[in-house]
Order: sequence, then structure tokens, then C-alpha cells
Amino acid sequence: MRYLIVDTSSRVLLLLANNGKGEIALWASNLDRYGSTLATIIEQTMNQLHLSCRELDFVGAGIGPGSLTGLRVGLSILKGLTFPFDTPIVPFNSLDVLARGLDFDDYLIMRKAREGHYYWREYSRGVARGLTQLSSTQEIVNTTDPSRTILCLEKKENALKFLNYEIEIIQSPSPLSMKTIVLETFERKETVSGQDLSPIYLQRSVAEINWDDRNCENR
Amino acid sequence: MRYLIVDTSSRVLLLLANNGKGEIALWASNLDRYGSTLATIIEQTMNQLHLSCRELDFVGAGIGPGSLTGLRVGLSILKGLTFPFDTPIVPFNSLDVLARGLDFDDYLIMRKAREGHYYWREYSRGVARGLTQLSSTQEIVNTTDPSRTILCLEKKENALKFLNYEIEIIQSPSPLSMKTIVLETFERKETVSGQDLSPIYLQRSVAEINWDDRNCENR
Repeated sequence: MRYLIVDTSSRVLLLLANNGKGEIALWASNLDRYGSTLATIIEQTMNQLHLSCRELDFVGAGIGPGSLTGLRVGLSILKGLTFPFDTPIVPFNSLDVLARGLDFDDYLIMRKAREGHYYWREYSRGVARGLTQLSSTQEIVNTTDPSRTILCLEKKENALKFLNYEIEIIQSPSPLSMKTIVLETFERKETVSGQDLSPIYLQRSVAEINWDDRNCENR
Repeated sequence: MRYLIVDTSSRVLLLLANNGKGEIALWASNLDRYGSTLATIIEQTMNQLHLSCRELDFVGAGIGPGSLTGLRVGLSILKGLTFPFDTPIVPFNSLDVLARGLDFDDYLIMRKAREGHYYWREYSRGVARGLTQLSSTQEIVNTTDPSRTILCLEKKENALKFLNYEIEIIQSPSPLSMKTIVLETFERKETVSGQDLSPIYLQRSVAEINWDDRNCENR
């Protein structure tokens, strides 16, 4: 099988391409505006594998939650790549990649959203137990049991807000976990067309909120 | 710090580059003759990071043991990159990367050499306990204690030759383990110049053996 998988939901770009024999997995963090070079990175990776868009059996797309700009750029490129050949797309939750391989009974994978808020999802031994949510720090503290639930954070400094909890700092997300999740999803035939691909969109962007605020003030 | 690290000792190419802020880690398996494209892969990765050879504080080089062709190509390119600027090179043992993160008291990391032989090195909790060696399957069985030593192999099918041993199949080597090892080595100032960079060379290649055989026959 030949495929390309991309997750642009955070400052870490995850990319994996496979031509049925060879495979390239790429992990990039803190690239300057990788949005502007993502198409090049994809093209170069596929060239190394002598892989053309026409040949792809499917494309995996990380749909967040996370950086809205990152997701927009990533999903737009994947839509463009798949449109000419109606290539099926396998969407996957970006938090699921972080959850994979963690062997706790009950834990939340948490990703910083806007100030004082987190995207989060509950897992048990790698399996999601509910929908992806957006809550304030206080809401999370109010609704989870520190004696039962482990909080998994991407950065140590965010642990200070959750003093009574057992905290786990999430390892760098792995392109190989991403691959496993996408292959499983493709097996279950959970694919969409490029037209129906959309990010997990739980909050309005700060730009949208500011826009509304400004417009109200001006009235 | 700005650096480039490359390991070409196996069918899995490991590459990591860092420009002091952003980082790209690449893992590629079963690329067709990656020797012929390795320079391009390095150049593209460094370009993504706006990183030039002149700026590199050091270059990390996996010196095997492993594929002689892979090592020759990889080390030649690194010598070329570092020669103009006398960039220090941090050599590292490629088996150390596989050993990193394994938490056993006593284990061998083993990599297939020529038919019936293995490169191997003994470790305790990630720390090497001796030199890298080349031995036949029988020699390894004769000199290691199955009740004490775990054998770590890259492929399941090789386990059949070691029936009384506890076998661990090695995970894909990680560019991030490689980075940790190289940064530690650089801290200890264990660097060499490009001129002094050479692979761990424990066996003559099959080509060399055949050459000698043929020449002896011809005499």
C-alpha cells in the first residue's frame, strides 16, 4: 500500500510516507512558519520514495484539535493533493497519537488551547473514552478526580495549575504511532473525501473573537 | 547549538538536524539505494532549517558496526561536509542507539553481520559494558549465560537460533536517542576531525574475502 500521512496540529510537524516498500518518517519541531514550506517537504519526501500523488491509496490527515493555522495549512494541502484523483482521506484525532502507547487506566491527554484553556480527551490504555473537549483549567479541576485520573501535559510548566494530580509529561509524538492509528482506521474503512475533510474545531480563533469584539464596540 | 547527525549503518537511515531553535528528525527504511540520494536528503533537511555547513558546531556520525557500504557512503559525505570548515565530528557506536532506553540489567544488542555472524555489544541499563564484537551464533551461545543475559535482536526470525534465551525484539532506532547520545559525547569533548573519522570495522567485506579467495585460486 502507498500512503502519505501528515499532522500539522501543533508546533511539531509529523509526516510519514510509504511506497509499499520503503518508508520515510519525519518529525520537525519549531520550524519557522512551516506552513510556507510544508508543500515542499511533502514533495521532497515523496520524491525520495519515487511516489506520485496519483499512486496514493490513501492520505492520512491529523484533524486536531490544535493550532488552527497549522491545521488549515495542512488540511488545505492534503485536499489539494487528493482532489485530482479522488484519493480517500483517513482523518484522525491528533490527541490519539499522543495517547497511543500510554498504559494507564484513566488519563487525559491535554493540549494547550487559548490562555487558561485546554483541548482534552479521556483515554484508557490508549483507547479514547469520549469526545474531544475544550475546557478551562478550573472546569477540568472541577470535573476530574485527582485520585483516579492522570493528567498528561505537553509542558512541565503547565503542571503548576494542577497541584493535586499525578502529572505525566507527554513524550514527543511519534510518526510511527500516527501510522498505526491511520492503518487501523483505514482497515475499518473510515475514510472521507477531500471535500468532507474538516478540522476538529472547538473554539473560535482569537482573531475571530477580536473581530467580533471590535465590531460590537464600533456599533 | 547547530548540528547535523547521521547514521547510515543499517537499512534504516537516521538523520537529525538542529539550527539552535528548530529541529528535523528523519527516519527512513528500505529506501532504494539511499547512498545515491543521501547527500540530497541532507541538503534538503538543512535547507528547511536555513542551516549551512559553515554554521555547524559539530556533526554526529554513526560509525557502525553495520552495513559497510552504508557506512562508507555516510561517513564520506560527512567528511566532505566538515572538511572545508574543520567542523568537529562526534563519532558514536550505532548499537548504542539501539541500546538506549532498554532497562534490563544485562543484555546484548545484536546486529546481523555476514551469514551466521553477529555484531554485538553488552549493555546494562543503556550503558555499554565492553567493546563491540563480531562472533558466530555458536560463539555467542557458548559464552553467554541464558539465565542472566537477554538477547536483543532486530528480527524475530533470528530468534530461532537462540532457543534457551530470553529474546527482545529491538524497536525501530530513534533519531532522538541518537541525539541524546551525541550531545552527551560532545559534552565530554570526544570529537575527532574528518580525517580521523573511521567506521568500526570488525570484518572484512564479502567482496574482500572473495577477492582474496579468487586471487589465491589463481596463483
